[in-house]
Amino acid sequence: MTFDQLTRLIFRKKSLLCIGLDTDISLIPRHLVSADDPVFAFNQAIIDATLDLAIAYKLNLAFYESMGLKGWRSLERTMEHLRKYTGQVFTIADAKRGDIGNTSRMYAKAFFEWLQFDAVTVAPYMGEDSVTPFLEYDDKWVILLGVTSNPGSRDFQMLDVGGRPLYEEVIRKALQWGTREQLMFVAGATHPQLFRKLREIAPDFFFLVPGIGAQGGDLHAICENGLNQYGGIMLNSSRQIIYASGDKDFAEAARAQALNLFNCITTHLNKISP
Amino acid sequence: MTFDQLTRLIFRKKSLLCIGLDTDISLIPRHLVSADDPVFAFNQAIIDATLDLAIAYKLNLAFYESMGLKGWRSLERTMEHLRKYTGQVFTIADAKRGDIGNTSRMYAKAFFEWLQFDAVTVAPYMGEDSVTPFLEYDDKWVILLGVTSNPGSRDFQMLDVGGRPLYEEVIRKALQWGTREQLMFVAGATHPQLFRKLREIAPDFFFLVPGIGAQGGDLHAICENGLNQYGGIMLNSSRQIIYASGDKDFAEAARAQALNLFNCITTHLNKISP
Repeated sequence: MTFDQLTRLIFRKKSLLCIGLDTDISLIPRHLVSADDPVFAFNQAIIDATLDLAIAYKLNLAFYESMGLKGWRSLERTMEHLRKYTGQVFTIADAKRGDIGNTSRMYAKAFFEWLQFDAVTVAPYMGEDSVTPFLEYDDKWVILLGVTSNPGSRDFQMLDVGGRPLYEEVIRKALQWGTREQLMFVAGATHPQLFRKLREIAPDFFFLVPGIGAQGGDLHAICENGLNQYGGIMLNSSRQIIYASGDKDFAEAARAQALNLFNCITTHLNKISP
Repeated sequence: MTFDQLTRLIFRKKSLLCIGLDTDISLIPRHLVSADDPVFAFNQAIIDATLDLAIAYKLNLAFYESMGLKGWRSLERTMEHLRKYTGQVFTIADAKRGDIGNTSRMYAKAFFEWLQFDAVTVAPYMGEDSVTPFLEYDDKWVILLGVTSNPGSRDFQMLDVGGRPLYEEVIRKALQWGTREQLMFVAGATHPQLFRKLREIAPDFFFLVPGIGAQGGDLHAICENGLNQYGGIMLNSSRQIIYASGDKDFAEAARAQALNLFNCITTHLNKISP
């Protein structure tokens, strides 16, 4: 998907919502467990119940890898299903990969050729040659970890390197590696106070924002400071949407949770493009 | 595998050699391509030809992921084969994973429960809660990226953070998270001048050292400065061993390359334990 297509998608749907399919077989409704592929059945129902509300689906690879070959098969089937909606959703492999050049090239092949994701999250620690092989694909995206949403984000990302925090140095350096049409950054919703600065550093780039709460508390500050004329942010919620109910009404309950976030987001988007 | 078992293995085999099974189907001998599972057939032959020379095999996940489900099946079969030699080799998933706590837990499940590796490489950027879930398994290991062997290692790992380079801060902080019996560090062979300092920082810990050349040039400096009474280093070579010949003699040629390194290593090990 191109930058322009993504922006048009955002303003057509009036949404910035990304739904995280972090599907844990021990948490899905019990009536699905007897299905041929319970994880795929769950994902399919969630996707179909939320497609008009979400601009993106993010699949965290760890949840699939932990189930072995059958997990990978569920992932593959979920991507086959999402390809039926090409042009209607952006797809993210939340994989946090990154290795020496010839090896990152292999990861890029896995996510962009085999599984055909639009984007993959990449960890920056190994530097430029670990990131650039992912940038060689047309209309595919790297989403580089900038500042993450977890407690450990304070261990290294906030360290001062020559007068600025490491995450800022990572973003500034990466701006030399790719354009806004191929590169985004992860910026955790648990750091809402950073979004004004992040938007200054990378005015035209997209940020993927994990860690949005169902209450929408942080969402307002992040929208106020993070939105730009392209939309410019994708707000991810995973567990609070997909596990809204553990019963037969799980898909409707997920839709209701997604709709809460969607309504907050639409209000903000209407301010910049009524 | 425990710390003591690993140390005994090193001194029994008189080796520190780790062989990287970065198996690329486009580079394996053509006569194997018609096999039912060419990648597994290749790996099996390399393992069986080098088992007395190597203390460890490192499988880089990217090469398997890039081949889709059949790549994962080749990886699974390779691990089944390596389990026949339990106690004789240490196995490393070179995966460079790392995510928020509940997600790292899923990766740990994949590598330690499904695939039953002894160790997994982990990227430090996301901090403590991204690493500690991997440390909850008895006799399993995290190998945390310290200073990597690639050109991009200079982009962030060498940045000054309060008077020391970032990689040193990563190692010093991680020493608080785990013991020498569950935690190692990656230190690239392309930085031989750092090994004296690394050994000071973490005197009793193991380092996994990728990027060893077939000439053994760096190997001497690294052994001189990196060896401790437990061995304390694992020297990885991948392409130069496994692709020593692209013909039917590939396994013998790989053994010959491995033997060159083995002989250099044995000389150094004899100095500390004749």
